[in-house]
Amino acid sequence: MGKQKKIIYSFGNGKAEGKATMRDLLGGKGAGLHEMTRIGVPVPPGFTITTDVCTYYYAHHRQYPKGLESEADAALARVEKILGRRFGDAENPLLVSVRSGARESMPGMMDTVLNLGLNDQTVQGLIQRTRNPRFAYDSYRRFVQMYADVVLGLKPKDNNENDPFAAIIDSQKKRRGVHFDSELDAEDLKEVVAAFKAEVKDRSGKNFPDDPRDQLWGAIGAVFGSWNNDRAIAYRELYHIPHHWGTAVNVQAMVFGNLGERCATGVAFTRNPSTGEKEFYGEFLVNAQGEDVVAGIRTPRPIAELKTVMPNAYTELQKVCRILEKHYQDMQDIEFTIENDKLWMLQTRTGKRTGFAAVRIAVDMVEERIISKEEALLRIEPDHLNQLLRPVFDNKDKEQASREGRILAKGLPAGPGAATGQIVFHAEDAVAWRKNGERVVLCRIETSPDDIRGMEAAQGILTARGGMTSHAALVARQMGKVCVAGCEALQIDYSERLMHVGETTLKEGEWISVDGSTGEVVKGEIRTLPSEVLQVLLGGTLAPKESRVYQQYAKLMRWADAARELGVRTNTDQPDQARVAMAFGAEGIGLCRTEHMFFQGDRIQAVREMILADDEAGRRRALAKLLPMQREDFKSILEIMGSLPVTIRTLDPPLHEFLPKSEEEVRELAQVMGVPIKLLQEKVTVLQEFNPMLGHRGCRLGISYPEITEMQARAIFEAACELRKLGKNPFPEVMIPLVGSQEELRAQREIVEQAAQETMKSYGVKVRYLIGTMIELPRACLVADEIAHEAEFFSFGTNDLTQTCLGLSRDDAGKFLPTYVLEGLLPQDPFVTIDQEGVGALMRIAVAKGRKTRKDLEMGICGEHGGDPKSVAFCHEIGLDYVSCSPYRVPVAKLAAAQSALRKKA
Amino acid sequence: MGKQKKIIYSFGNGKAEGKATMRDLLGGKGAGLHEMTRIGVPVPPGFTITTDVCTYYYAHHRQYPKGLESEADAALARVEKILGRRFGDAENPLLVSVRSGARESMPGMMDTVLNLGLNDQTVQGLIQRTRNPRFAYDSYRRFVQMYADVVLGLKPKDNNENDPFAAIIDSQKKRRGVHFDSELDAEDLKEVVAAFKAEVKDRSGKNFPDDPRDQLWGAIGAVFGSWNNDRAIAYRELYHIPHHWGTAVNVQAMVFGNLGERCATGVAFTRNPSTGEKEFYGEFLVNAQGEDVVAGIRTPRPIAELKTVMPNAYTELQKVCRILEKHYQDMQDIEFTIENDKLWMLQTRTGKRTGFAAVRIAVDMVEERIISKEEALLRIEPDHLNQLLRPVFDNKDKEQASREGRILAKGLPAGPGAATGQIVFHAEDAVAWRKNGERVVLCRIETSPDDIRGMEAAQGILTARGGMTSHAALVARQMGKVCVAGCEALQIDYSERLMHVGETTLKEGEWISVDGSTGEVVKGEIRTLPSEVLQVLLGGTLAPKESRVYQQYAKLMRWADAARELGVRTNTDQPDQARVAMAFGAEGIGLCRTEHMFFQGDRIQAVREMILADDEAGRRRALAKLLPMQREDFKSILEIMGSLPVTIRTLDPPLHEFLPKSEEEVRELAQVMGVPIKLLQEKVTVLQEFNPMLGHRGCRLGISYPEITEMQARAIFEAACELRKLGKNPFPEVMIPLVGSQEELRAQREIVEQAAQETMKSYGVKVRYLIGTMIELPRACLVADEIAHEAEFFSFGTNDLTQTCLGLSRDDAGKFLPTYVLEGLLPQDPFVTIDQEGVGALMRIAVAKGRKTRKDLEMGICGEHGGDPKSVAFCHEIGLDYVSCSPYRVPVAKLAAAQSALRKKA
Repeated sequence: MGKQKKIIYSFGNGKAEGKATMRDLLGGKGAGLHEMTRIGVPVPPGFTITTDVCTYYYAHHRQYPKGLESEADAALARVEKILGRRFGDAENPLLVSVRSGARESMPGMMDTVLNLGLNDQTVQGLIQRTRNPRFAYDSYRRFVQMYADVVLGLKPKDNNENDPFAAIIDSQKKRRGVHFDSELDAEDLKEVVAAFKAEVKDRSGKNFPDDPRDQLWGAIGAVFGSWNNDRAIAYRELYHIPHHWGTAVNVQAMVFGNLGERCATGVAFTRNPSTGEKEFYGEFLVNAQGEDVVAGIRTPRPIAELKTVMPNAYTELQKVCRILEKHYQDMQDIEFTIENDKLWMLQTRTGKRTGFAAVRIAVDMVEERIISKEEALLRIEPDHLNQLLRPVFDNKDKEQASREGRILAKGLPAGPGAATGQIVFHAEDAVAWRKNGERVVLCRIETSPDDIRGMEAAQGILTARGGMTSHAALVARQMGKVCVAGCEALQIDYSERLMHVGETTLKEGEWISVDGSTGEVVKGEIRTLPSEVLQVLLGGTLAPKESRVYQQYAKLMRWADAARELGVRTNTDQPDQARVAMAFGAEGIGLCRTEHMFFQGDRIQAVREMILADDEAGRRRALAKLLPMQREDFKSILEIMGSLPVTIRTLDPPLHEFLPKSEEEVRELAQVMGVPIKLLQEKVTVLQEFNPMLGHRGCRLGISYPEITEMQARAIFEAACELRKLGKNPFPEVMIPLVGSQEELRAQREIVEQAAQETMKSYGVKVRYLIGTMIELPRACLVADEIAHEAEFFSFGTNDLTQTCLGLSRDDAGKFLPTYVLEGLLPQDPFVTIDQEGVGALMRIAVAKGRKTRKDLEMGICGEHGGDPKSVAFCHEIGLDYVSCSPYRVPVAKLAAAQSALRKKA
Repeated sequence: MGKQKKIIYSFGNGKAEGKATMRDLLGGKGAGLHEMTRIGVPVPPGFTITTDVCTYYYAHHRQYPKGLESEADAALARVEKILGRRFGDAENPLLVSVRSGARESMPGMMDTVLNLGLNDQTVQGLIQRTRNPRFAYDSYRRFVQMYADVVLGLKPKDNNENDPFAAIIDSQKKRRGVHFDSELDAEDLKEVVAAFKAEVKDRSGKNFPDDPRDQLWGAIGAVFGSWNNDRAIAYRELYHIPHHWGTAVNVQAMVFGNLGERCATGVAFTRNPSTGEKEFYGEFLVNAQGEDVVAGIRTPRPIAELKTVMPNAYTELQKVCRILEKHYQDMQDIEFTIENDKLWMLQTRTGKRTGFAAVRIAVDMVEERIISKEEALLRIEPDHLNQLLRPVFDNKDKEQASREGRILAKGLPAGPGAATGQIVFHAEDAVAWRKNGERVVLCRIETSPDDIRGMEAAQGILTARGGMTSHAALVARQMGKVCVAGCEALQIDYSERLMHVGETTLKEGEWISVDGSTGEVVKGEIRTLPSEVLQVLLGGTLAPKESRVYQQYAKLMRWADAARELGVRTNTDQPDQARVAMAFGAEGIGLCRTEHMFFQGDRIQAVREMILADDEAGRRRALAKLLPMQREDFKSILEIMGSLPVTIRTLDPPLHEFLPKSEEEVRELAQVMGVPIKLLQEKVTVLQEFNPMLGHRGCRLGISYPEITEMQARAIFEAACELRKLGKNPFPEVMIPLVGSQEELRAQREIVEQAAQETMKSYGVKVRYLIGTMIELPRACLVADEIAHEAEFFSFGTNDLTQTCLGLSRDDAGKFLPTYVLEGLLPQDPFVTIDQEGVGALMRIAVAKGRKTRKDLEMGICGEHGGDPKSVAFCHEIGLDYVSCSPYRVPVAKLAAAQSALRKKA
């Protein structure tokens, strides 16, 4: 380590070498212990070996840096001095715990050893000190068992073998004719310790280490070693914690919550982590060690009861909590032990909380003048806002389902919220059952635009294939529907109307519950609770406007609106969704897809006529039928949005998406249309594509069939003009998709411009409008300077830009993308968060080139990334004017935008 | 036009205001007339109205710039003075021709008016001067007819109506009881003129203009107007001639080749444009006007005969040709007229020529010391070299087919050369028929890797779907096969073994011929001739090494090799193709696809076992079968290539490409493999993808199944080590495809590196090798600096880079890409020539970023663009080390590389 850096930090007796800000070096637990000591909170003395030592350890074939041992000796001596005990002393022995502690909490992933320092000599000292031989031998027994497991690695040989140590205890109980561990006395436990040690010798071929120093270094090595055990590695991969961070090791004097009835141990939160209510919240056990709380053998008691059991300790604990919360300016999650009425704090950290709690705590703390509005905004994970908007499962019901083993599988959490309903496999069934008042969950291998009405009718959507931005996921989030996508464990048999999930078979009509926030699929019904915020926003009757949750939500949103610089629009093509988005304060529509409208009612018939027409005249005849319908669609959306901009995209998907696929459907359509089946089948075949994503779609359709663009432009401007005549001030922005060259946009622009001029002339009014393009091809980014000559706005279509930049079909990536993200081959799922190095680099090029040509070019993003907080921050960083996201993501995007603006200022 | 630029340039009597270099301003014809006048060649005097006037004309609602008329008057006066005749003079009238002349020749697309200046008065002057009333009235008749057509636009009313002027002549002949036009005398023709004028009056409501000045301005306007007639616009779109160039107008004194037996008119080349032989080559007609040569009513005579008919004029013509060729330093294409033994030159331009002629003329001219080697290299279109390597149709046979209406359709010219054979529709049939000694043309809707052996067996390949880089086209060019792809007029019925092309039905076994250089599909057999160069190169017996064509080709290639800086490798995975490429002087293999090997023989069986295996163990079992086969493949290719680099790409296509598609094939495979059909069908279904191009392929396969990469790496290094043991010096470069991030390449690199080290250790030898990647995703270009940490070479896969950058599937683009190119929405077919603005911009980024990380990074291109001359020049410009192309493109790439190096120097 070159010039020797300090590698051990001591704490105790009101003094500490470390502090809260040294989290990277001391780990979260260590930093907390030092800081608590520093501010006068009672903490058993100890020392922390830094994460640097862990890093060194792994970089040097598991060797420690020079001087570690002597520094540890010195630190141990300081602890001995504070407590007046000696490590390994037979009269008055110091016992210690050895615990891991990484920069980020990795609960339960790494190892801990308690009661370290006990052997046949020191146990006598413990008996003397505590006058409790049974306690002493029980501690000794626990230590040997834990050490053998954690340090010596003596696990059951296989899954069928019982824990050998449990077996020893059982046989001792049998021998003594008793039923409970607690009925074993000190002598029994002494025999158990001896039998444990014999078992260790038998299994490992080595004696159990009796020298406390050997015990200590064994435990330290085990904790460092546990940084790289399988579950810790898996956990870090799951939560994107870098492997090179390493863990610290905390060696700390033992205090005992299990010395008798004046002793206790517990965990608590300074506020309710579930609701955010300002109440002391937690659990404790009298006469217990920490592990007993976790093990779940005894049921812990609510913290309030501590007040009656140990009033002094309780008052002290409350005081400490107030001090800690004020000091850290946030809700704390603490661990404590009471040894003979004396309170000791063993841990403090910022408490994890639900979205509800996050909002309530932040807003409350502003009102309590603990933090500023800016800090409140920065403190809430934007995604947490979602919880305020979604129905949620009743937690008790869900826990019960878990206990009953009804959690069948896990898919992708594609549409947050909780849904429960009867299984249906076909969109039509969803609609029909819904009409009969049933709640249904639509289960599909995958969904297609044909399923939209069924999705709308369902409580939730469950698919076996597709990723986080598959059709099902995209539409579900847009609708605010619960969705679990790509649940590969499902085997759906449409014809039999059933599905297999592992051993379980579920038939149509059976109840199922899906949790779109976790991806869990649960057999049976689970009670759900609606979102209060949403009820108020949409003027429902379930919740009053005075609802505290709503009030706090609204307050937070006002602060966010004041702080942010980025505009926030929404992606929708449905009037009711537009209303939802308006309720959320969307500042316009960033993407109105016109093709979704093609599936409504009988329109698909006219659409298919248009597609299958033999010539332009035939197409025009069919388009003429569609025009009035599209005009009415646009009119209602433009009307809802008032004078806010509404970005309407011209037809984008390849035409075959509108055609029937199966032979039977083709036969039916042929009958309806009165054309020979063979001819229709031929046309369908000709339109099929190898790579539809890269095929005849987007503006390429409008280039081939200018009459389609013309019809859509006319419908838009007729709608706008009619509203204008009524004194409204609609503001359409016509967006041409999939443009790759200036010439393409020029050609389409001319058609739109002409339709606009002619329509306005014939109505005798003027409407504001812009014509621009979706930037969704790498080439468009690279020639953005040229394209900007024809475009008044750019809207980044980052879904397709991601697909093309990475050469990654979102519909096919499910097979390998999860592995990619897990193994760090890509920094994150690029369909969730913008891939800044790749897609982001193209966006930067496009922004620079676009503004070079046209200074006032309006720029936004309408890909799904518009609702992802990290991506929102990136959009702000590169200078976009707005983001656009699904209606239910609007609050999330607003908060993310506010955070980005605040961080930029800082 | 602001400060008045000179808008009319005069020539005549040995002096000219313009010259050869003023082609942009005066047009090709004009520049030639001025230059010829300037160097003392006899040219009738005249003047040129510049292309600027045309541009002005179209920019100003068809108004001429001020001063044009007075400048024209002055120019006309100069002509009058030179000839001593006056325009419109009844005694000694000046007659003129008015001809178009653009920067690039657009033969027959624009309009011409001859004999202008004739009316009832001036015709008398012509009679006096020529003493030939019949000639004068015939000229008058021709003028009125031509003027009415070209200037007044009097065409037949519809296709069914006969030419009204022809009808007048016919009725005059009937009245006079004669059969031929030539039997009509002066008086008859006078009546015809009157009837013509009456017809004009009748149809247009206006009198035919008798004033020569009116005639002149009418004709000038018509020529300018003809720049934008439909066929001229279509022609420019086809040949990428900018619409804004405009045409010049040449007004020139008439000379007459039809004044009698001492008169003639003709066209000639200074060397044979077909063979390049140094011989005067052309045709003439005695007593004729230029249009008669074109009209094809009289058969022109070979130019050699002119020597006996008019020896003096012939000597003069030969002399002029020598002067012109020496002056222009290139073969010239001339037009001349002889009026009463006096030679007049009407045009000279660089002559179009075949590839054979281009090579011969260039090499001959170097030997004649007319041009330098560098000029010779620069003068040959690289693509022209192809003609020296392909079988070609016997021209006479093909012309006959054309006359007989047997040219049925046109597809894309996907694999140059000529092929004739019997129609088969299935690859197996092609193989079987070929074994029986038949020549076949394989006709498919599209081809797949399954068809490779059938394609090999066929003379030519014809497909109904797919573009210039479809599977059929790609494989065909690689094999050097003739191919016409994407011929949408074909309707193939596999089950009936027949196809419809418009009205024609062709059955299996019928003869068909396809011209892969033009895309033509011809019914019946056409005789083909083999390439001499290829025969010599491959050591055949048909042509001797002394073959002049071969010798000249070889000389040119030596010059090119000396001049070029870029390396040229080849793309192949077949030993026989590798040998061809070596014969062409390829400097290594730039892309050896390993998957094509998977289809050979029974391997596909093992491949399918691998794909359908349930676990890694199963995959490894199947891979173990493939390893020795792949090793032998690599060994034979590495051996052929000696110590030259061989870039071997690990498995790239999605696995479903190797599986059967139809239900029947699945059933068969299930039987062979002994697995239930349903299980196999499920696996096949699971592997299907929405967008295979963006799916689970490339290194993504090697990431999911590292054992595949491992097997391939082992096979490569075992092959190399075995050769090394034999004293050879093989040089494999292992290329990982579809890399998008550094981490992907690192993971794959580790596997290859380990296989290399282990294999070399076990063989006890060292081999040179590199590990690198294909750059074929936009993201790879954008993070090339990171990727370069793991790569010793980059090879640009511009096929896929084009598909992803433009979001354009080459298999689906056939529906709209041709329109895109025609309408200028894209500058060219991006699958033929690198899209420099888009794909090229990404390549520049990748080159800069790659070299930043690793100065000595080897960089090449292995996409099909490596054989496209413009793309080769681009690769040279951005600093690549080599291009790689299909074996038969190697000479083309070498020449293009030489040209690029020479242009860079210049």
